[in-house]
Amino acid sequence: MISPYQRKVYYYETDKMGIVHHSNYIRWLEEARIYYLNVLGIDFHKIEEDGLYCPVLSASCTYKKAVRFPEEFSIVARMTMFNGVRYRLAYEIYVQHSKTPVAVGETEHCFANHKMQPVRIRHKFPEVFQRMMEVLPRETADL
Amino acid sequence: MISPYQRKVYYYETDKMGIVHHSNYIRWLEEARIYYLNVLGIDFHKIEEDGLYCPVLSASCTYKKAVRFPEEFSIVARMTMFNGVRYRLAYEIYVQHSKTPVAVGETEHCFANHKMQPVRIRHKFPEVFQRMMEVLPRETADL
Amino acid sequence: MISPYQRKVYYYETDKMGIVHHSNYIRWLEEARIYYLNVLGIDFHKIEEDGLYCPVLSASCTYKKAVRFPEEFSIVARMTMFNGVRYRLAYEIYVQHSKTPVAVGETEHCFANHKMQPVRIRHKFPEVFQRMMEVLPRETADL
Amino acid sequence: MISPYQRKVYYYETDKMGIVHHSNYIRWLEEARIYYLNVLGIDFHKIEEDGLYCPVLSASCTYKKAVRFPEEFSIVARMTMFNGVRYRLAYEIYVQHSKTPVAVGETEHCFANHKMQPVRIRHKFPEVFQRMMEVLPRETADL
Repeated sequence: MISPYQRKVYYYETDKMGIVHHSNYIRWLEEARIYYLNVLGIDFHKIEEDGLYCPVLSASCTYKKAVRFPEEFSIVARMTMFNGVRYRLAYEIYVQHSKTPVAVGETEHCFANHKMQPVRIRHKFPEVFQRMMEVLPRETADL
Repeated sequence: MISPYQRKVYYYETDKMGIVHHSNYIRWLEEARIYYLNVLGIDFHKIEEDGLYCPVLSASCTYKKAVRFPEEFSIVARMTMFNGVRYRLAYEIYVQHSKTPVAVGETEHCFANHKMQPVRIRHKFPEVFQRMMEVLPRETADL
Repeated sequence: MISPYQRKVYYYETDKMGIVHHSNYIRWLEEARIYYLNVLGIDFHKIEEDGLYCPVLSASCTYKKAVRFPEEFSIVARMTMFNGVRYRLAYEIYVQHSKTPVAVGETEHCFANHKMQPVRIRHKFPEVFQRMMEVLPRETADL
Repeated sequence: MISPYQRKVYYYETDKMGIVHHSNYIRWLEEARIYYLNVLGIDFHKIEEDGLYCPVLSASCTYKKAVRFPEEFSIVARMTMFNGVRYRLAYEIYVQHSKTPVAVGETEHCFANHKMQPVRIRHKFPEVFQRMMEVLPRETADL
């Protein structure tokens, strides 16, 4: 059980509507994703240094309730798919005392080399592959 | 026929992968949306001054090909749904000489007051309503 | 003695040079400033709710050494001037194991109403005034 | 005589104070700088492809009057120093009908290799050197 990613809204993340600008949630998903993968033993920085990148294939977010400065939010992330090249995560964003998420999101990624070409990691990065497989709910693996 | 929204990538929109960070596309969709609605006679600034806001209910983007500094991109936007309170737009992002979009996106919005409560605009903002109806492909109106 | 503001660099804060984009340091100064003032008993959110804003009059940063993802940085802030309307802060940014700052910055602010007009806070916001005076090194008060 | 850099404020550049967030001006200076150098024959993208980078050594901005969505602003830039390794630019930001700048800024840069080490460009990049010298007001050259 991983403790959720948590931080406070920054002032500069708000817009003239007085709420957090919706584009920042996409950045929050990245923060949560890197935190989540790191906790699971996949060090984003290290794999990039080894030439393995994780470009985003798609990102989406559904906004249910505005988040405001200086609220504290937490993000629960889970991997929902991994097929050896591509993987998908789902996210729920909560603010304090909210029982239902104020937003939910999803991102899909592939492993790629520095030329942004897809890389099947099973044999080239067996340790990353192994970690990904352990993370994944068994029923969603799709190799 | 509206000419597409166009501009160049800014240096600060890139990330250490050497490509435009995916969160910036969500901001580009907003730029294109405001441009598009303005051309169609709906002045974002003016309606906000009149107390009518357009919070984002959902946003999504599918990334097909990386965009890089200092490429010029253009965005074609079209309204795909309007039901008197909510509306949806679809977007295609192109770079020069690309025949297929490098990314496609979708956003959904509602009209809301300053408390972020939904507002049915037909009677309260008849001019905006009228413009929205004219913009909308007939078959997608859903009142 | 206030513990410095601390967090890790986010991936999206980098640019294609592979380092944190310089504009983000200006945002970091804001994060540190709000943290610092909060610790000192001045709640940014609360004073804004009371109609007291802190627009920025000037901001500057000198970059001595690039900061990279996923480094952890800390920011030491101190108030260097307060004259009842305007105040100034100085900042030093450190990364782990750096003995000298990787960047130093300065920002100047005034207290203002919602129309962005300057407000002398001594009599209108005596509690904020009191906290500011306590924070300030005695020799730099200039009322 | 170079025509100034111009564009409109984006919605996402505002903050909950209802004005453009001050950090965005630092990004605007970059937009104006790259535009200005390009007009003068120095192609930022091309020189980076050749391994010549321009990290920022310092940046500052003085804010005189708030800028708001959807105002159009223009930025006048001029080089104020170049010594073969480092250069400095000064900027004035105007909005329509403003006779005095709403903000002024300054940035200092050095030429550097991909390891962020300073590079004297006179012999290694003679064409860039030549363009820089031509751009520079004679009295400010300092070789």
